[in-house]
Amino acid sequence: MKALRFENNKLTLAEIDVPNFKSEALVRVLASGICNTDLEIVKGYAGFQGTIGHEFVGVVEAANDAPHLISKRVVGEINAGCGACEWCKKGDSRHCPQRTVLGIVGRDGAHAEFLTLPSLNLLEVPIEISNEQAVFVEPLAAAFGITEQVEIFPETRVAIIGDGKLGNLCAQALALKSRNVSLVGKHKEKLSLIENRNIEGILLETAKKLSKKFDVIIEASGSESGFELALNLLKPRGKLVLKSTFHGAAKWQAWRVVVDEITIVGSRCGRFAPALELLRNRQIRVENLISEKLSLSDGIKALKFAGQKGVMKVLLSMAN
Amino acid sequence: MKALRFENNKLTLAEIDVPNFKSEALVRVLASGICNTDLEIVKGYAGFQGTIGHEFVGVVEAANDAPHLISKRVVGEINAGCGACEWCKKGDSRHCPQRTVLGIVGRDGAHAEFLTLPSLNLLEVPIEISNEQAVFVEPLAAAFGITEQVEIFPETRVAIIGDGKLGNLCAQALALKSRNVSLVGKHKEKLSLIENRNIEGILLETAKKLSKKFDVIIEASGSESGFELALNLLKPRGKLVLKSTFHGAAKWQAWRVVVDEITIVGSRCGRFAPALELLRNRQIRVENLISEKLSLSDGIKALKFAGQKGVMKVLLSMAN
Repeated sequence: MKALRFENNKLTLAEIDVPNFKSEALVRVLASGICNTDLEIVKGYAGFQGTIGHEFVGVVEAANDAPHLISKRVVGEINAGCGACEWCKKGDSRHCPQRTVLGIVGRDGAHAEFLTLPSLNLLEVPIEISNEQAVFVEPLAAAFGITEQVEIFPETRVAIIGDGKLGNLCAQALALKSRNVSLVGKHKEKLSLIENRNIEGILLETAKKLSKKFDVIIEASGSESGFELALNLLKPRGKLVLKSTFHGAAKWQAWRVVVDEITIVGSRCGRFAPALELLRNRQIRVENLISEKLSLSDGIKALKFAGQKGVMKVLLSMAN
Repeated sequence: MKALRFENNKLTLAEIDVPNFKSEALVRVLASGICNTDLEIVKGYAGFQGTIGHEFVGVVEAANDAPHLISKRVVGEINAGCGACEWCKKGDSRHCPQRTVLGIVGRDGAHAEFLTLPSLNLLEVPIEISNEQAVFVEPLAAAFGITEQVEIFPETRVAIIGDGKLGNLCAQALALKSRNVSLVGKHKEKLSLIENRNIEGILLETAKKLSKKFDVIIEASGSESGFELALNLLKPRGKLVLKSTFHGAAKWQAWRVVVDEITIVGSRCGRFAPALELLRNRQIRVENLISEKLSLSDGIKALKFAGQKGVMKVLLSMAN
């Protein structure tokens, strides 16, 4: 089968064996989505070697322990735990210290014709959700997961910093909880994607003047400057949610965090079930986030394109 | 009257007028405590000019709006708000944007023979509490305030990093909530001060091996290395309370905060009433934290001594 692999510091479209699925389910991938994490991995982040990709929709071809899933269209939670530690016993493998993560840590990923995952990780996709929409379940789960970590009320004043794919999804997800959501970004054309969603788009230069105006800020730009801006825009006792992995600000304003009693909340993966519901009910719009669809055979080109300025989501289709 | 003042980058023992108390209460100071913040101010922190000091016990000499306080022995909350903003209306002047702070922001402090504060800030000191103990109400309130921001259960595994005055008080305060409190420090003799308090003292080099073992960490060392260590010792989804103001770590592990979904909580001032209760009930031991008592006349010498290695709390007495 074809697979987009990162090995020995090189990205290749390789021809490899269909994975041995053993005790897991074998999934034929229909489509996958390119995430910024894929771009980071290709730069060396997390030291991952293997097939990249973790956003996908597919069809179950084999599942010895879950025959009811066979032929079903599914998405899959990306963390696979050991099953025995305190985290796994609580039913949350996202923090299992022995976990593998699809296309990120110790497990071949989704930019391939087939992948394997524990059948417990798979969720059937309702008929109302298209393949293209289903690819967004993973990032939407991550965005909506914020609402499980931080209480958001209708009057909570929220800003999302970063008008990329993740920022857009966070803004839409939080606008389901609060009437006062702003999306802060550098790009008028990206901000225009959230028009008519009851979200205010604010250009970066304007946002800089809104010192201490927000109760909750979501940092989704992945940059040092986004983190610094977030601290400046927060009210005392405000909450800053770190959503994207950046590599640390030089001399950040730690004293501000103490004096203003700010809370910083790290946030990574969310649960898939609520995200599927939001897509099924048309509460989140993802179609206009797709910049391009390419075939897996053009995977290398697609990854390069996904890294270009102004590009939102790039999808890969596994059909030739 | 005598006052220990920092002006034009110079610390002096000045002779100045007794303050005009207008609508506030006039307090004759009996004793004051030297805090690390005083030492920072003398290095230029916060740009403060005036009489330093914010930990004190005194006797009310005048209070036009609160005659019942006259002649009472009191301690005083250090933040004085505008009375009109949303924070003050909620009864919490600690985050009033117009606030003054005793000996720290725009208001002469406690290392003097007299000070003024709004009478609402003053709390009578119960007879069971000595003057020396009462000086610890402010830092103890700050330590115990953590338990109002972060839930601590008997089984919560807590570490406090920093075996100085604040770290010691935090360890004692949290040991009232959890059976699993460790104090991490570099100094055997400082760690020995918490013996018999049901707190485990751990030397720094040993603590470094306890990666991902703690649910809650209190950073009370005020150093970059303490902050980095705290991130390493926390379990996934753990909470890091920043208690002392340090000036930002170069290239901190922000990605760890996201991947392990850590929460960082800034924490500054606490309420005085619970701290007074803890001292009255002998639940917190402060006497052995006093390294030296000097007279206000020796204030400059006292501040220098307080900054020396191994020194814990230095008190100033206003009696000649």
